[in-house]
Amino acid sequence: MPHLHIEYTDNLTGLNERELMREVNAVVCNHPTVTDEADVKSRIARLNMGNVYIGNQPDNRGFVHVQLQLMAGRSTEAKKQMSDGIAEVLRRLVPQPADLHVQLSVDVADMDKATYFKGRL
Amino acid sequence: MPHLHIEYTDNLTGLNERELMREVNAVVCNHPTVTDEADVKSRIARLNMGNVYIGNQPDNRGFVHVQLQLMAGRSTEAKKQMSDGIAEVLRRLVPQPADLHVQLSVDVADMDKATYFKGRL
Amino acid sequence: MPHLHIEYTDNLTGLNERELMREVNAVVCNHPTVTDEADVKSRIARLNMGNVYIGNQPDNRGFVHVQLQLMAGRSTEAKKQMSDGIAEVLRRLVPQPADLHVQLSVDVADMDKATYFKGRL
Repeated sequence: MPHLHIEYTDNLTGLNERELMREVNAVVCNHPTVTDEADVKSRIARLNMGNVYIGNQPDNRGFVHVQLQLMAGRSTEAKKQMSDGIAEVLRRLVPQPADLHVQLSVDVADMDKATYFKGRL
Repeated sequence: MPHLHIEYTDNLTGLNERELMREVNAVVCNHPTVTDEADVKSRIARLNMGNVYIGNQPDNRGFVHVQLQLMAGRSTEAKKQMSDGIAEVLRRLVPQPADLHVQLSVDVADMDKATYFKGRL
Repeated sequence: MPHLHIEYTDNLTGLNERELMREVNAVVCNHPTVTDEADVKSRIARLNMGNVYIGNQPDNRGFVHVQLQLMAGRSTEAKKQMSDGIAEVLRRLVPQPADLHVQLSVDVADMDKATYFKGRL
């Protein structure tokens, strides 16, 4: 059930969306606490800078943010491993345009197991 | 205050967005713990498969995911009833294209009552 | 690390997206518990009414919803101050079209500090 939402600002020109999703997914799929790779579902959203506002001096700023939602029950250590693995992918794959301050972040959130529904058609 | 975010992959051709939102809303509006139907707010997002990556062998896969956010305080049983009701709607209304593996999921999350603001113009 | 996601229905014609983001950001940037204004990142999404369904009698309804995600650890009072400040901005800046019932809401959510990653390129 891991869900991933990746957002990035469109001033990060040259970012390869498919490659980024593939490698972020690989981190989660390969983690020993994830049993079925098919459960890992990433979405990526390219944010127009007109729809983004960073701080109170927003010029020359961009970001990539990843939210990873997992079924509750994993240890902090396990979640930290996935967060660190995703961070490594971001550092490697996110381009650095000249004169742009680029922030990277990964948020790992639990989902409630007792009320989660999962099925297949 | 219930908020619903429905996401589905665009390879689920023929999915009727309005019907799906209407029936998902009905499940929540009709639950005895929801007092004002106007509070129930659904959004639906059709995800281009180019912006989605499922597992590490992503071909021939699709999904529908519903996130339901509720004010904290309801019992697990009440939340499970809503989750089950939404799952029933998904099973009934999501199309099954040939040769596509379709995952369905519902996540129910609490929002913090002490800091939530709600008002009307 | 504060993240803001602002959603509004496109029947709220005349809403100034940049002004709204600037003023919402200012509330968060100016709060004493926020040390670096550059960390505050807002996104705004204009929702087509075709992709929205409000309650079970959806005509003539609209909304603005703000989700503020903060690193866990702040007091309820601090979070309530930010929520109230954002609510004040919404009351001031969201237009009131004739014959439209407009709901405003602010949700403040914690993010897990132990597993959050934050870096810069």
